[in-house]
Amino acid sequence: MYESCEPTLLLNERICKSNIQKMADKVQKFDLSFKPHMKTHQSADIGNWYKEVGVEAITVSSVKMAQYFAENGWNDITIAFPANIKQVKQIDDLTSRIKLTLLLSNAFVAGVLDKELTHDANVYIELDTGGNRSGLKVTKISKIKGLIEQINNSKHLHWSGFYSHPGHSYQAHSKQEILKIHRSVQDQLKDLKTHLGLNQGSFEICIGDTPCCSVGTSFENIDAISPGNFVFYDYMQYQIGSCDIKDIAVAMECPIVDRYEDRKELVIYGGAIHFSKESNSGENPHYGPAVIEKNGSWQVIDSDTYLKSISQEHGIIRCSPESFEEFKIGQSITILPIHSCLTANLMKNYQLTDGRKIFRLS
Amino acid sequence: MYESCEPTLLLNERICKSNIQKMADKVQKFDLSFKPHMKTHQSADIGNWYKEVGVEAITVSSVKMAQYFAENGWNDITIAFPANIKQVKQIDDLTSRIKLTLLLSNAFVAGVLDKELTHDANVYIELDTGGNRSGLKVTKISKIKGLIEQINNSKHLHWSGFYSHPGHSYQAHSKQEILKIHRSVQDQLKDLKTHLGLNQGSFEICIGDTPCCSVGTSFENIDAISPGNFVFYDYMQYQIGSCDIKDIAVAMECPIVDRYEDRKELVIYGGAIHFSKESNSGENPHYGPAVIEKNGSWQVIDSDTYLKSISQEHGIIRCSPESFEEFKIGQSITILPIHSCLTANLMKNYQLTDGRKIFRLS
Repeated sequence: MYESCEPTLLLNERICKSNIQKMADKVQKFDLSFKPHMKTHQSADIGNWYKEVGVEAITVSSVKMAQYFAENGWNDITIAFPANIKQVKQIDDLTSRIKLTLLLSNAFVAGVLDKELTHDANVYIELDTGGNRSGLKVTKISKIKGLIEQINNSKHLHWSGFYSHPGHSYQAHSKQEILKIHRSVQDQLKDLKTHLGLNQGSFEICIGDTPCCSVGTSFENIDAISPGNFVFYDYMQYQIGSCDIKDIAVAMECPIVDRYEDRKELVIYGGAIHFSKESNSGENPHYGPAVIEKNGSWQVIDSDTYLKSISQEHGIIRCSPESFEEFKIGQSITILPIHSCLTANLMKNYQLTDGRKIFRLS
Repeated sequence: MYESCEPTLLLNERICKSNIQKMADKVQKFDLSFKPHMKTHQSADIGNWYKEVGVEAITVSSVKMAQYFAENGWNDITIAFPANIKQVKQIDDLTSRIKLTLLLSNAFVAGVLDKELTHDANVYIELDTGGNRSGLKVTKISKIKGLIEQINNSKHLHWSGFYSHPGHSYQAHSKQEILKIHRSVQDQLKDLKTHLGLNQGSFEICIGDTPCCSVGTSFENIDAISPGNFVFYDYMQYQIGSCDIKDIAVAMECPIVDRYEDRKELVIYGGAIHFSKESNSGENPHYGPAVIEKNGSWQVIDSDTYLKSISQEHGIIRCSPESFEEFKIGQSITILPIHSCLTANLMKNYQLTDGRKIFRLS
């Protein structure tokens, strides 16, 4: 326990580096390119841990994040977000400094970019493989062909291939369900390739969700992966089936400020502005299980001890009768976050177990 | 429309100041003290708008917030959060500089504070009037009496009275339901006074929720109020029955980055790290209705146009067939936040409609 006087996001460096190494090993095994997404950690220091395993290209989800990592020595960055034409000046500035890849699925946007950019940018066409968020459905062959042609005829845009974030894998509840989605994505990409009739090797396909990249045992028709959340994982990914509890690299440590014997509940300093309002799915929605550190990783105390509710700064921990006796006012309690991307965004920095603090874009 | 290239939190100064004035008028009408909660806006500039209506005492929900407002000229601050003994040094430093009031409901905490503090602090005993979050139930008369005695016998603690945040009013769905809760709170406070048998005027009672303070038409057995959210209100408060849409002072303006004709949906730059993951209650949970500005306030476009889903940076706007035609890529769309406290915490600053930006504690 670090025992800060305020809510603190603990980061276990060993687990985090192990998650990075395992994904790098997988990338090598399947002969893929690795373009890890930085959106979860948003830290130059953690970015350096990727450099240690040979990573040279990264993915981000905003222009601001691209600027931050460009300033921190990254020269090959994909912005995995529909190109925002309101930011064309900032995008143009980035293209003058680094190899920048944009996401596109719209002819109007392609036209604006080609007209406004003064330097070259690479372009992935974004595909919607089932997430229903953004991108063209793979069945929209004529639209996709038209967009490739438009890009190929443009002055500053260079077509690199396709990008898809199969976000529907976040709805899975088991490894089997993830694998089914991953199979469907690969089948869609195969169909697309067949219908396009383009030469293998003339473009690449990149996919980027943590569940499929963590669990997948084949990567047919996929050339590159860009998962992000796996660097920390979280309780949601555990429930989806992407990881084990022992793979979760971050946990929130919060001071216990009050104790209610009647209802076996603790009040902690730690609320929605620290954890985020993301709750887990299932019959008993909550904001994360209480854990203890054991053998270098976190272990759930019992199924009845969890962060039951949160308001802005308050959290209420429901305890089992046994665990309630263990916790005293003035001590801390540790909770696994439901969604580490949102918790890390709120907490802004990471407390390593050896006392060092590392920072992120804020 | 301000039309920034990134998600922007717009603040309508006129509506905000009108909300402050209306609450100040109510405070005067019912002969109450006004100790507005700063947790929603957390801005020294907006704090100054309270000074303009004569406010001298404020409420905050963390030591950090108390430090920030003390540095910005406030000398009478209540920290409406169970006193965190891990922060006793910071609390002691504050007591040396300003009139500080703490919340207590635990004899052990009172003992630690009395032992550790080197300057005087005022103390409200926190009451749980139905929120089941923190505080003593008003029926725990002997515990309450014991705590008052302990405080009265202490060296540095001075008993000021009672504080309650009737947070269960956030579960209301109409003005009638709010008024029922408000009645119950007043009845509990009356019973408490009867059982304690203390002189009227020797202590004060402060309550602090926006629904009851906004809607309440009597304030029996209440001496002071400390609502916070009313400064902005939000869509949740509208649904609870605390305000009208025209009273909502903040709205999120987000760039439209893509458009899907088939599903009548827009993709916006604006997600969970901008809005928070708080969704509205009811049959159709969403993250806020789309609005247009009309006659100096925001007006909901139609019941079918709203922020349907959010991921980290993406938002999906479901449109009616009519509204879909109005929105183009490269324009912005404006959304009322569900919970302005959490949205403002994420956005960190406010864009006034005249172009000025105002900042908050970050």
